[in-house]
Amino acid sequence: MNVRTPLPQDQATDDFPVTPANRVRRASTRGRYDRTTIHAILDAALLCHIAYTIEGRPYCTPTSFWREGDYLYWHGSSASRMIRAQAQGIALCLTVTHLDALVMARSGFHHSVNYRSAMIFGQAHAVEDPTQKLALMERLIDRIYPGRSGIIRPPNTAEFKATTMMRMEIETASAKIRDTHVSDDEEDYANVPAWSALYPVTQILGEPSLCPRQAPDLPYPKEMADFQPGARLDDVMAKTYRCTFGT
Amino acid sequence: MNVRTPLPQDQATDDFPVTPANRVRRASTRGRYDRTTIHAILDAALLCHIAYTIEGRPYCTPTSFWREGDYLYWHGSSASRMIRAQAQGIALCLTVTHLDALVMARSGFHHSVNYRSAMIFGQAHAVEDPTQKLALMERLIDRIYPGRSGIIRPPNTAEFKATTMMRMEIETASAKIRDTHVSDDEEDYANVPAWSALYPVTQILGEPSLCPRQAPDLPYPKEMADFQPGARLDDVMAKTYRCTFGT
Repeated sequence: MNVRTPLPQDQATDDFPVTPANRVRRASTRGRYDRTTIHAILDAALLCHIAYTIEGRPYCTPTSFWREGDYLYWHGSSASRMIRAQAQGIALCLTVTHLDALVMARSGFHHSVNYRSAMIFGQAHAVEDPTQKLALMERLIDRIYPGRSGIIRPPNTAEFKATTMMRMEIETASAKIRDTHVSDDEEDYANVPAWSALYPVTQILGEPSLCPRQAPDLPYPKEMADFQPGARLDDVMAKTYRCTFGT
Repeated sequence: MNVRTPLPQDQATDDFPVTPANRVRRASTRGRYDRTTIHAILDAALLCHIAYTIEGRPYCTPTSFWREGDYLYWHGSSASRMIRAQAQGIALCLTVTHLDALVMARSGFHHSVNYRSAMIFGQAHAVEDPTQKLALMERLIDRIYPGRSGIIRPPNTAEFKATTMMRMEIETASAKIRDTHVSDDEEDYANVPAWSALYPVTQILGEPSLCPRQAPDLPYPKEMADFQPGARLDDVMAKTYRCTFGT
């Protein structure tokens, strides 16, 4: 047998440290700290929301991002107030949320939604090295559209200068997941005649609308085979992620 | 003619004040400050992300919310660290983002996404008055499922105590919208042979999965006629909003 039995410390090694910042307190049975769970939530997402403060005031900004190992990357305009503030190494919280279902119940208290969310804590810095920065600008595109950096025009000098690539080491993180059905107080099942159900929610791709100035007979990029109308965006993002970065 | 011609100040009155906090600086032509636009984005959403700080550290938490006039409401566990911190009247930023499309281009710089987002700034407080609080607990449900508070079990004493309803006056706000097609540098259209398209993205409801302990022959609530499999969640939320609150 070559299959190794996982040791208890393997599990521990896979976990992010649990600190006062990331410990899941409410509905704590929904909390997870292991990289496998947290990576799966991050790598299925295109967008996150980042909380940061400027002069004591919090901001919550949506942006695209991706993960490599224990690092997260995103980009912005070099002139952006968000980017200039974040590049100082201030504390950040980056959150990803997938809404999976609406869950109705027989009391207001037990209404819920199913979701997969991850909160990541750390500090970010701008990537200054030009070679690293260019490679990140390519992966920003390839993470979503595998191989596309090789068929588009590379950044020109002005674009390169106008773009800042941010990198944040994951200091700690937690995930929270609800994936169960309607769950009511025992006495309410019989006593409350309210039609109750779980409605799945998915984010899906539609039919592509071609660029009106497309040259005729351009081939559909074979690396984009997963971009099928009706496909779930989280599935497509997980597949394109593996395509670009492996598993 | 009874149709009044809008005066310039009507437009001004509809706008939230533009301050250093909410002024849209990047891609400023995408910025909007009028209530009509901002309300439409908020009222089509089930979830938001709220940025707040505890002991100088920012957090970004997803939660359900709704709007009434210039106030936003959400709820949480009375024991939650988020709720206890927010109830002190700290500064908050509540952001809603609808992802509408992936937009490919012929350079990395012009890749984009279409979206509708709104950032709301203010301070929140817990609603202490029991009558107001109970009415908000009902609207928390009815905002999503019109009329449902009338057919479910009301909150019991423990649930009422365990739930805190938060209220935030909108101090200022901005929206940012991209809703255009592929837009490339003029010379790239002819020179870069990269298949380029816009992929619509929508969040949709699936087939409901009935509670396995449902009593037989329970009627489907007629107020939920919009919850059709395949319906867009943002459309359903906008319709249920109008159903509960009017236009």
